[in-house]
Amino acid sequence: MPAFTPLIDSLPSSVPFVGPEALERRTGAAIKARIGANESVFGPAPSVIQAIKDHAGDPWMYGDPENHDLKQALAAHLGVQPENICVGEGIDGLFGYAVRLFVEQGVTVATSLGAYPTFNFHVAGFGGKLVTTPYVEDREDPASLLKLVTAENARVVYLANPDNPMGTVWPAAEIQKFIDALPETTLLMLDEAYSEFAEPNTRPALDVTRRNVLRFRTFSKAYGLAGARVGYVIGHPDVIKAFDKIRNHFGMARLSQVAALAALKDQAWLQHVVREVAAARERIYVIARAHNFAPLRSATNFVAVDCGKDGVYAKSLVDGLLKEGVFVRMPGVAPLNRCIRISAGKKEQLDLLEAALGRLV
Amino acid sequence: MPAFTPLIDSLPSSVPFVGPEALERRTGAAIKARIGANESVFGPAPSVIQAIKDHAGDPWMYGDPENHDLKQALAAHLGVQPENICVGEGIDGLFGYAVRLFVEQGVTVATSLGAYPTFNFHVAGFGGKLVTTPYVEDREDPASLLKLVTAENARVVYLANPDNPMGTVWPAAEIQKFIDALPETTLLMLDEAYSEFAEPNTRPALDVTRRNVLRFRTFSKAYGLAGARVGYVIGHPDVIKAFDKIRNHFGMARLSQVAALAALKDQAWLQHVVREVAAARERIYVIARAHNFAPLRSATNFVAVDCGKDGVYAKSLVDGLLKEGVFVRMPGVAPLNRCIRISAGKKEQLDLLEAALGRLV
Repeated sequence: MPAFTPLIDSLPSSVPFVGPEALERRTGAAIKARIGANESVFGPAPSVIQAIKDHAGDPWMYGDPENHDLKQALAAHLGVQPENICVGEGIDGLFGYAVRLFVEQGVTVATSLGAYPTFNFHVAGFGGKLVTTPYVEDREDPASLLKLVTAENARVVYLANPDNPMGTVWPAAEIQKFIDALPETTLLMLDEAYSEFAEPNTRPALDVTRRNVLRFRTFSKAYGLAGARVGYVIGHPDVIKAFDKIRNHFGMARLSQVAALAALKDQAWLQHVVREVAAARERIYVIARAHNFAPLRSATNFVAVDCGKDGVYAKSLVDGLLKEGVFVRMPGVAPLNRCIRISAGKKEQLDLLEAALGRLV
Repeated sequence: MPAFTPLIDSLPSSVPFVGPEALERRTGAAIKARIGANESVFGPAPSVIQAIKDHAGDPWMYGDPENHDLKQALAAHLGVQPENICVGEGIDGLFGYAVRLFVEQGVTVATSLGAYPTFNFHVAGFGGKLVTTPYVEDREDPASLLKLVTAENARVVYLANPDNPMGTVWPAAEIQKFIDALPETTLLMLDEAYSEFAEPNTRPALDVTRRNVLRFRTFSKAYGLAGARVGYVIGHPDVIKAFDKIRNHFGMARLSQVAALAALKDQAWLQHVVREVAAARERIYVIARAHNFAPLRSATNFVAVDCGKDGVYAKSLVDGLLKEGVFVRMPGVAPLNRCIRISAGKKEQLDLLEAALGRLV
């Protein structure tokens, strides 16, 4: 047969995440509380749903490959120029492009042990050498990452603020200190997928004069559009322009562009969701403590709950909850995997969680 | 700044296609007849539009990363197994993945001079060495491609049947002969994006026991869902499985999955569109001949019209039509670029085309 490239041959067939539909097919049991993938059960805004309905006949047309209207609106919203923004097929898609721009076989990439697996998937997929440093007190640790970058001469470093899967966050000043200390030849990929849920003082000011910082944000979480696949990356025009060399120019779904634009315009809904999520976090804290678990304070739309034992025990809870129709996930590596990760839910979903945990623990 | 890879540095910033919205922004004139990108002006089926409306609130959920339901339905429709199918973000997205599986720097890829530019974009993007052979009588020529593959020891060869941009087609038997003659170590990427518009006897039987043939099809053309970005590739399970090593697993928009599934179920609409397109082609032939142009017989939803002079003249027509609000395109290289390429339109769009050509010629 035709030869795969040696790099492809070397890659495992494992996938970063199994979707809830696949779990349903495997277990044969319907998921009643879908609170495992950090989707927003509060949904997109009614104004967004209406926009989708209004444009339901439009998909005979390709989307605008330049994402012009969405970039204009984002630029105005963020106080930058459209040239500072690349829109792509979710942050996952943009991670693939960004890694491809900078990483080839032999290039070293630094991240935290247990941080976002899909980033690692892309690094491996382009032949990068991944080096890691542990979380410190359940946070990705900028000081450790900086040491690692220097020691390993890493060309790229990944940091999420707030973090996934632990939900922890650093103040903006700490992130800024990290940025300032980073070698100019090292690219920071700063994942801010959950930043709308965190306090404003956790977001360093945007500085698009820096060529070595890319900030990744998304409509998947607070805007409730995970299934639309719209992410964006903010950075220096020279770096942003390079995405055009490789991205799938006609890759954006037209209705997704419509939905994201409508979502951005409805900041009232965003604030509503942020309040709902904050309330849901409080309830998850209460439920967790009632079972003698230790919830981690979260700056996101999920809560990592320390179940007090090891990963085997946490896994038994995740599996047990799934059998009860409650879909949650857990971190992949120790010691983070003593936790289970529960996304913010509405009352009915958290009722199911509470009841199921009561039966299991 | 952080170093791009040498491959990225070597790539041009040019893009394969400029979208019609971008053309509108540049010219300041609205497009009244959007018949340049081979989209289906006949739209998706009313049943598809209804399905989108019914699911308009769903995009808070990620799409199923396994595309399970769509693959099941496609497998039943095609008489193959789900393991023979990978669904992706349009054929463009799947071309990117397929090229990445087989092509790295130094690998030779064969295609026809003037064939689909986005395929070439991906080959360049992964460092492949592109070799070409001319069209023969406005068709991609299997015999020439076979010679080229052998002479250049090409690992991958691209062939579209029917062809874009010329709209010409080979009978199934000729394509089968090409497949049978191809070295087992050369992968054929057979682009069948337009095959629903062609006679059934132009599609060789699916043979998923072959490891060196991948067949690419789409919901973008006959199903009227260009903006949904849903393509699929059919092949041997070992090759199909390899896509999982690199694809953006959560890359499919949820509403796009819904739309594609609904579209596949509505074969009556597909047949309606195929009839409308056939009628539109006939009218384009008539309009072209009335201006002393020579339309090429087309097996697709567009017609390449030989304008009898060179690319400069054809370009002047494309530009002139755009000023009149009629968006068409043209092939990129000689001698194909003596033609303009006009997509099937409804009566009102072809009326605009006819009137505008009348003023221009």
